[in-house]
Amino acid sequence: MSKGRVEAFSDGVFAVAITLLIFNIQIEKSAPGGLLHALLNAWPKYAAYVASFLTIGVMLMNHHGMFLRLARIDRPLILLNLLLLMVIVFIPFSTAQLGSNILVAEDAKTAATLYAINALLMALGFGAVWSYALMHPHLLVPEIDRQAALRALPRFSIGTLAYLACIPLAQFSPIGVIIVCALMAVYYSFETLPDIMRHPAGVR
Amino acid sequence: MSKGRVEAFSDGVFAVAITLLIFNIQIEKSAPGGLLHALLNAWPKYAAYVASFLTIGVMLMNHHGMFLRLARIDRPLILLNLLLLMVIVFIPFSTAQLGSNILVAEDAKTAATLYAINALLMALGFGAVWSYALMHPHLLVPEIDRQAALRALPRFSIGTLAYLACIPLAQFSPIGVIIVCALMAVYYSFETLPDIMRHPAGVR
Amino acid sequence: MSKGRVEAFSDGVFAVAITLLIFNIQIEKSAPGGLLHALLNAWPKYAAYVASFLTIGVMLMNHHGMFLRLARIDRPLILLNLLLLMVIVFIPFSTAQLGSNILVAEDAKTAATLYAINALLMALGFGAVWSYALMHPHLLVPEIDRQAALRALPRFSIGTLAYLACIPLAQFSPIGVIIVCALMAVYYSFETLPDIMRHPAGVR
Amino acid sequence: MSKGRVEAFSDGVFAVAITLLIFNIQIEKSAPGGLLHALLNAWPKYAAYVASFLTIGVMLMNHHGMFLRLARIDRPLILLNLLLLMVIVFIPFSTAQLGSNILVAEDAKTAATLYAINALLMALGFGAVWSYALMHPHLLVPEIDRQAALRALPRFSIGTLAYLACIPLAQFSPIGVIIVCALMAVYYSFETLPDIMRHPAGVR
Repeated sequence: MSKGRVEAFSDGVFAVAITLLIFNIQIEKSAPGGLLHALLNAWPKYAAYVASFLTIGVMLMNHHGMFLRLARIDRPLILLNLLLLMVIVFIPFSTAQLGSNILVAEDAKTAATLYAINALLMALGFGAVWSYALMHPHLLVPEIDRQAALRALPRFSIGTLAYLACIPLAQFSPIGVIIVCALMAVYYSFETLPDIMRHPAGVR
Repeated sequence: MSKGRVEAFSDGVFAVAITLLIFNIQIEKSAPGGLLHALLNAWPKYAAYVASFLTIGVMLMNHHGMFLRLARIDRPLILLNLLLLMVIVFIPFSTAQLGSNILVAEDAKTAATLYAINALLMALGFGAVWSYALMHPHLLVPEIDRQAALRALPRFSIGTLAYLACIPLAQFSPIGVIIVCALMAVYYSFETLPDIMRHPAGVR
Repeated sequence: MSKGRVEAFSDGVFAVAITLLIFNIQIEKSAPGGLLHALLNAWPKYAAYVASFLTIGVMLMNHHGMFLRLARIDRPLILLNLLLLMVIVFIPFSTAQLGSNILVAEDAKTAATLYAINALLMALGFGAVWSYALMHPHLLVPEIDRQAALRALPRFSIGTLAYLACIPLAQFSPIGVIIVCALMAVYYSFETLPDIMRHPAGVR
Repeated sequence: MSKGRVEAFSDGVFAVAITLLIFNIQIEKSAPGGLLHALLNAWPKYAAYVASFLTIGVMLMNHHGMFLRLARIDRPLILLNLLLLMVIVFIPFSTAQLGSNILVAEDAKTAATLYAINALLMALGFGAVWSYALMHPHLLVPEIDRQAALRALPRFSIGTLAYLACIPLAQFSPIGVIIVCALMAVYYSFETLPDIMRHPAGVR
């Protein structure tokens, strides 16, 4: 399986998963005339939609950034990538639970914990693919300064730590989990993979 | 993330979102023998389906026209494009509300207003990506006459104004909103981005 | 919008629409232990699934065959293609009605008629795109023998006539409509666009 | 229809089908406060999701491996490939039945049998496409040692036999079917098409 194929397939999965998020926005209209009320009451679903859309979108950007740094791929990397996709496709489910339960006092913490665990697994999956590549230098494009990449790894792990911190955060502020995840997405949309190119202008 | 990738991902999201519109056509058959009646009664859902299919399809054409005029992209443009896609993926939801409620006297105005707001946000999102590109000339292909493009901007804003006008229109003619949106799609399928090329024959 | 883009977008819509057919297979299990019975009772849904999967799949093949014969596209052709896609995306809905109602005596004819109309519109839509291209020779690849293509048009119209004949057929044999549509798909998978190339080996 | 198109379309179908698996994870929350319980009770759905995600993902890898060995395609191969895709798109349905029924004593065997049959048909479909190609050497890339490929066919048929064995296995250990299918996916992610290249380093 060529690198281009894995990228195209991953792109397809990202595109479908991000679009399926809209199905999580279901409203319950009690009676004729209740549409406006039902639309306004669904605000947690919109918030969860925005957070997850940005999260998947930014994960896609970083996924592309990572593949730009790969010269070739092997079977274990394909399998790790498949596991990463499996976690990402799970996000619409976690988002649905979050949107449906965040206003239900008894279940909000559970839903936010689920969402945080899903985000954490996504960050860990991404880290696993990237670490595997760094440990197998023949997979990387030659322009990469592998030592710099290894040194920069901790800085890039901020996401993992932030999502990990969301698990305790979920216990006292479920809505805070949505906010942190949305903020992480904005952060990552500007912070890309560490500047590990010897000729940074060459590959963005 | 390369320009080609952003285009491919955007194409995927457009294709999935436009296809998901079919899920908004759900009929309620009261009893055996009631299929024909139920099918005929669902006409507002077909109308909303057609309007939204054309709207997303034509937005796709203009999205491609825009990317043809971009030589490269940067992180803020990717983020703006992601926000635009987030609004477009919302259209199946707005369409569902419109199709389900336009015959419900108490809710038709609300549903039509929601639909008009969604269309307006889409036009604004498109304008934001394009304006950002115009303000950063190094992102544009060299053949573009930027001054002409800036002068032509008002003419291109007709869609934004039409969708804005749909919000008051929704208050007294919800069905008019569907018609205006469908007409705008037909209009835009012939009116493309302003003729800003120095060699118009060169690019599409 | 380049020809390649229109093809890629069309491919995406075909792929999503064909995959969504699986959602039409919903079974109703009355009680624990009733799964086998429910699975067997759903046979009309499997039959409709197979017929529609083949129909969309073969339409995709012919769509590609047509685009191989196009050298370039223009705005009206893009719009006609969009209308064709709009009809194809409708097939999962018609299929759902057919699968759900073909065993309901009172509704089977209506559902089969709807399905036949959808198939007919698809054939007409395809014919419209292809006729438009034939009437605008600058859109065609130079290798095409346009006179031969025009002469071959009637032979290619068999599908349109078969689907048209399905409308009266639906009135007395709804299941016959499924069979005819499946057979047409098999027929078209071997009968391609008329042999209009001067060098038939060059482009398949 | 060119080989590249068939691959792109197949990729799209794989990507959509694998992502739709998430819809099979529906939980039933009995009352406020019941989310955690409902999430934990849904474990068979997660297991079925993982098994099917890996199965489709690995089938995709092998599909690509097969197409790398094809130099060109013809109409019957396209039709066989379409039938293979039709079986793969069915997997989300079988997965849903498995996830919903494996804890229902009366229905678990039926659901596991359905799942095993679906997996078996997938293996047979794959075998049919590949056998057809081997029987038509002009479709293969010239580097292939066809004799070696034919000798290696039995070894590659392990999957078919394993899925066949799942049918009796389903009668006394439905959960065993999930485990075997997941293990087969891991096995196939490392065991690729037989090493039939004369210059194995050249392709993939």
